[in-house]
Amino acid sequence: MKDDGASIIIIGTELTEGIIQDSHAKFLTSYLTQLYYHVNEIVTVADDNSIEEILSKLVKHNRLIIITGGLGPTSDDMTRSSIAEVSGVVLERDQESWDRLYKRVGERIHGANEKQTYFPQGFTPIVNPRGTADGFYGYADKALIIALPGPPREAHPLFESEVIPLLRKLNNIKEEKREEYSTFLIPESRLEEATLEADNSLNWGTRFQDFKISLFLSGGTEVKRRAAIEKLRALVGKQLIQEGDTDAFSSLEDLLLEQKATIGTAESCTSGLLGKLLTDKAGASNYYKGGIISYSAEVKINVLKVSPKTVEEFGVISCECAKEMAEGALNVLSTDYAISITGVAGPDKSEDKEVGTLCFGFASKLYPTVTVKLQFMSISRDAIRRRACVAACILMKEYIQSKGIVDIESSWSYI
Amino acid sequence: MKDDGASIIIIGTELTEGIIQDSHAKFLTSYLTQLYYHVNEIVTVADDNSIEEILSKLVKHNRLIIITGGLGPTSDDMTRSSIAEVSGVVLERDQESWDRLYKRVGERIHGANEKQTYFPQGFTPIVNPRGTADGFYGYADKALIIALPGPPREAHPLFESEVIPLLRKLNNIKEEKREEYSTFLIPESRLEEATLEADNSLNWGTRFQDFKISLFLSGGTEVKRRAAIEKLRALVGKQLIQEGDTDAFSSLEDLLLEQKATIGTAESCTSGLLGKLLTDKAGASNYYKGGIISYSAEVKINVLKVSPKTVEEFGVISCECAKEMAEGALNVLSTDYAISITGVAGPDKSEDKEVGTLCFGFASKLYPTVTVKLQFMSISRDAIRRRACVAACILMKEYIQSKGIVDIESSWSYI
Repeated sequence: MKDDGASIIIIGTELTEGIIQDSHAKFLTSYLTQLYYHVNEIVTVADDNSIEEILSKLVKHNRLIIITGGLGPTSDDMTRSSIAEVSGVVLERDQESWDRLYKRVGERIHGANEKQTYFPQGFTPIVNPRGTADGFYGYADKALIIALPGPPREAHPLFESEVIPLLRKLNNIKEEKREEYSTFLIPESRLEEATLEADNSLNWGTRFQDFKISLFLSGGTEVKRRAAIEKLRALVGKQLIQEGDTDAFSSLEDLLLEQKATIGTAESCTSGLLGKLLTDKAGASNYYKGGIISYSAEVKINVLKVSPKTVEEFGVISCECAKEMAEGALNVLSTDYAISITGVAGPDKSEDKEVGTLCFGFASKLYPTVTVKLQFMSISRDAIRRRACVAACILMKEYIQSKGIVDIESSWSYI
Repeated sequence: MKDDGASIIIIGTELTEGIIQDSHAKFLTSYLTQLYYHVNEIVTVADDNSIEEILSKLVKHNRLIIITGGLGPTSDDMTRSSIAEVSGVVLERDQESWDRLYKRVGERIHGANEKQTYFPQGFTPIVNPRGTADGFYGYADKALIIALPGPPREAHPLFESEVIPLLRKLNNIKEEKREEYSTFLIPESRLEEATLEADNSLNWGTRFQDFKISLFLSGGTEVKRRAAIEKLRALVGKQLIQEGDTDAFSSLEDLLLEQKATIGTAESCTSGLLGKLLTDKAGASNYYKGGIISYSAEVKINVLKVSPKTVEEFGVISCECAKEMAEGALNVLSTDYAISITGVAGPDKSEDKEVGTLCFGFASKLYPTVTVKLQFMSISRDAIRRRACVAACILMKEYIQSKGIVDIESSWSYI
């Protein structure tokens, strides 16, 4: 136990009963390690447990304690009162927090919710725009205690936007100029190798996310960092690294909105997943009109008007079929652009084509149709379908931006 | 803290530095909960930390302590010596363990490895066929301490094959007859209330899963359990509780396979998600032919042939529109059955209809089309779309099984 270290208390019965997998520990410890904290202990306890004993012990041996959970209206509220107890103060109402909650829940505030506007005296609320429970921070002895709401989708953005700047300031860690990129389809191990190959004198960091890996770059001069990114792009494929915190879908959607253009889809192996992903956000009707899920050959032929001869000659997993699917979708759906996907999601081969073989078509009224064939590494059916949707959107963006040209370099071979 | 509970100590610097995601906690707590242990605390510490202080505290308040990690030859071996210290015994060599290790590593045993053949006096080794570190168990005071190797691929099989039978025996737990059901769309809190209302003398358990909640039932006689399930069905809606470990999609898919029937989809707000879910498993082409994602009104009218008059008079979020969408899909896709979904996924109202309003159509060549309107509680866009797909499949199954009749009872009002 290092006396200037940090410890974490995670509260949640669903964690002590094995119902869900914790996602706070890795997230928090990874950041704390970057901020030069030695993490002494992570203690996970049930909602009905008292954390007072644990907390009083930890404040003696740590300069930072982060607590997640136990701030809800129906919980036993042990976090709030235990922190007050250990800090030797009372709970008092914060008017601004009360006003915010009233705006959110109205008269329902006069119930269990009201507790959520009380904080240990002298502690500062951390405004939570994603839920009813604000976080808060303050001192017990020399230990800084930071309480955050339990749901990761509320706690993690708060930690990134509010807690990290606070800890930086307290520890006098200057905000290093750090650029963020979003990378797609490249496996983490290959990405890490390639960053070192691009420039091993800079500081690279990666974070695996749902449909992408975030890439962080700091150190050196701006010129040096820019050169490193260009080299990295050349190594792994220029379309697979995009500036800023974005994803393959938003990136295409923004371009469509900018152009006031509409899109449609023709999906075989992804069977609707691309249509679903392109409409995850409200307002999707401004660019997405609809799609044809042509899972069977009949639907390809009858609805998308793919020629039976094409199917017979080249099979449904072919660039020839992808071309006619995309053109069929453009026509049937009357959109400005259309994407088609046909391939082998596995687990078995199809038409003697390997699992992970994917053919894409990109069509518009302005430019000739382009097709692309890719071979994904044989991973799970689910991963192949997700990766196919990511690739489709990245390539469609390229098709639109380059006015009908899609330039896949050999470097894409790392996908 | 319950004095007859269990606690877990997880050792690993890669966990306190955020390098890897822990996988012991969920695994172990899920089993311990099934074995009726109340898990008090899970403490995660770095390899270089001492666990003696933590362990001495925990042995006072727990009847079971499981420790993973810290048994390797290169580690500081804190687990082995800390347990000996807290139990007030010395470490002594176990000849059988030494012989096994010698067989495995030969003369290299005369190094750090040799430590791995020493155990706290009076403790019993747990033979680990997958690595060099055997586990061991024994008592400190009244607490049973079980030490397991750190790597999950070594620890988890040992836990399942050696530790579970040991704990069953110690606690005199017979393998109890336990029935499993799968429940859909009912919120967990309502489900728990309803089980108590159905029969509070039986043992009910729930586990939240991705698209369903599993429900476990034990105790009483078989007749009594069956009566309780019937009462529960009457309380929450008979279609929403199904026997065994199933999901809404597989359950419909199995019925289609059995009937050698095909299905197609017409989706508006779910925009392809239903098509995606019905093809998650390989072999889906045996029942799923394809779908029309009619996100815009134009696609509803032009592709599904919904009458413009229906759209004008009733709006696209209406049972009238759902009926024509389902019939259009049946026709365009040439399938035996077709499902349509149109509704408001939010976050904003549409056509003055509330967020969570969903209209479904069920069509076939054999029976007249049936439509169903549901109002989901206003949750997230994502949750509404997922719940709409679950409801669509449950209702389609009912439509097929009851030969064209869908009987939604008032009890569905709990969704």
